[in-house]
Amino acid sequence: MIRRKTIHESEFDLIAHYFAPLAEKHSPAFGLTDDAAVLTPPEGQALVFTKDALVADVHFLSHDPAHLIAQKALRVNLSDLAAMGASPIGYLLALALPQQMTAREAWVKQFVRGLAEDQALFGCRLLGGDTVSTTGPLTLSITAVGAVTPGRALRRNGAKAGDDIYVSGTLGDSALGLKFLRHEITPDNDYLINRYHLPQPRLELGQKLFGLVSATMDISDGLAGDIRHICQLSGLGASMKAELLPVSSEAGKILESFPRYKKLIWNGGDDYELLFTAPVQDRDQIQSLARDMSLPLTRIGQMTAAPEIAIWNETGDNLLSDDQGFRHF
Amino acid sequence: MIRRKTIHESEFDLIAHYFAPLAEKHSPAFGLTDDAAVLTPPEGQALVFTKDALVADVHFLSHDPAHLIAQKALRVNLSDLAAMGASPIGYLLALALPQQMTAREAWVKQFVRGLAEDQALFGCRLLGGDTVSTTGPLTLSITAVGAVTPGRALRRNGAKAGDDIYVSGTLGDSALGLKFLRHEITPDNDYLINRYHLPQPRLELGQKLFGLVSATMDISDGLAGDIRHICQLSGLGASMKAELLPVSSEAGKILESFPRYKKLIWNGGDDYELLFTAPVQDRDQIQSLARDMSLPLTRIGQMTAAPEIAIWNETGDNLLSDDQGFRHF
Repeated sequence: MIRRKTIHESEFDLIAHYFAPLAEKHSPAFGLTDDAAVLTPPEGQALVFTKDALVADVHFLSHDPAHLIAQKALRVNLSDLAAMGASPIGYLLALALPQQMTAREAWVKQFVRGLAEDQALFGCRLLGGDTVSTTGPLTLSITAVGAVTPGRALRRNGAKAGDDIYVSGTLGDSALGLKFLRHEITPDNDYLINRYHLPQPRLELGQKLFGLVSATMDISDGLAGDIRHICQLSGLGASMKAELLPVSSEAGKILESFPRYKKLIWNGGDDYELLFTAPVQDRDQIQSLARDMSLPLTRIGQMTAAPEIAIWNETGDNLLSDDQGFRHF
Repeated sequence: MIRRKTIHESEFDLIAHYFAPLAEKHSPAFGLTDDAAVLTPPEGQALVFTKDALVADVHFLSHDPAHLIAQKALRVNLSDLAAMGASPIGYLLALALPQQMTAREAWVKQFVRGLAEDQALFGCRLLGGDTVSTTGPLTLSITAVGAVTPGRALRRNGAKAGDDIYVSGTLGDSALGLKFLRHEITPDNDYLINRYHLPQPRLELGQKLFGLVSATMDISDGLAGDIRHICQLSGLGASMKAELLPVSSEAGKILESFPRYKKLIWNGGDDYELLFTAPVQDRDQIQSLARDMSLPLTRIGQMTAAPEIAIWNETGDNLLSDDQGFRHF
């Protein structure tokens, strides 16, 4: 018979037992005992919602440590809140565990440990969720809830021709980290692997960008693909320089030995850095913000009236023009 | 390379194209163009959140029509809002589509049609979401968002010994409907199949129960399993009578021919009716509410100080005592 709970029910109770401490006993989530959580937004704040789904061996490796899978799933969603300038409040979790999974209880325990650590780090808590079994791969979906002052949410749609284009942090680390995890590069580089496992949602940065920027989003699919969204919404193009794209010293060393992986800088994805545009007159304030936060905010190009997206190399070629994975619009 | 989007990117754009009309162009979801939705709760209201995940061939049949899968997924979540006494505002959707799925575009189109119909029926809209591909079965997760006056959310934890136990509507229809869909009973009974495909979230009832009831939840796993939650939270038991359990005339006719399926009334699940407890003095008001709503609200037993859960048959046997799937606590 098709039933909600095909894993033995007592095991579901056990899972609930592990998850309950992630919620508080009183409102909003009532220790997960009720059908739903009740949340009153902070005084004068609007709520922000985002939802990302992750599938094993598509968005993470199924043998990744459980606590890191949990943290990546949460942080990917927190990165969306960061891109809106919101501060996190909590999250709901749907977890589909493979029927054939071994050592499920130990896995769940580690998974919950990862969430508990990140709840403390980012100031949020579990608001509710659902655990089911699946004949397919481990699948997770998180809905993150944050707060923002009404009218101060950062949007993707305000870029103007001539605006500068910026990215936070460095690009390509995560995609290179995955090359190590897939044994395509050896020996392991812990810094880059860690960047793949543990994205840093730029929450503080997002909360400080209001008033300085014209458009903001987070980079999940790679700079080249993601800037297309900003361009489409404003009817503009983007002209960027490859030599300006920020690369960590660790990634730089690897790319010297493996130059064929250079394009991971702009199309590797999983960066979870903020991509934003800002008027030229904000340059000083943005660099001052970068210094205050000790976080590189690198100017990589400009928005253009011509609706073409280009990353120019030093010999004047558009690196995106021969990129099969990339489409002009 | 492991990437967020393993279905061809242009197909994802197409999917976004179908989903966009389910969201409004302006706040909260900005036509799905941004990283997150921004929602200001109705004046003086708290927000209610719930999340349910559904996996093909666990929670629905993979060959069920796409619009019915969409509607069931949404309604299962709206049922949780109903159990809290909340009114729906919107929902976020994560959809994992099988890589091998054929006619994906046509399927998505029908899926979206189902959502659009139910959005109009229940007064809610798409707030955001994510579409990914999976090597496993079709998997969905919906997070529903509703509103409730602070302090007026219905809870599971307030039952007192001596309180009456009620259920709305009729039980077992959906589980019998599934027997037809699985060809365990023939010929098809459209009423019962429809009850399986299209649960009726008791939103209006939930909004009218505040002040009358001591505990409320919705029945998703079956009466016998779900009342356990109310009993556990109040440290009480429940004494119910099999002859009082409400059964539709359609289900009654089938059960005469197939008496072995009688236990689906209390352990079939997928009913999505409300289960609630109320003090004896509220009986008249509850029956008056039932008449006003033209919805049966049937008194099926009482909460007891002894922490045993029983459904008594006419010869005085507890039908749950030999039920392997049921555990006392």
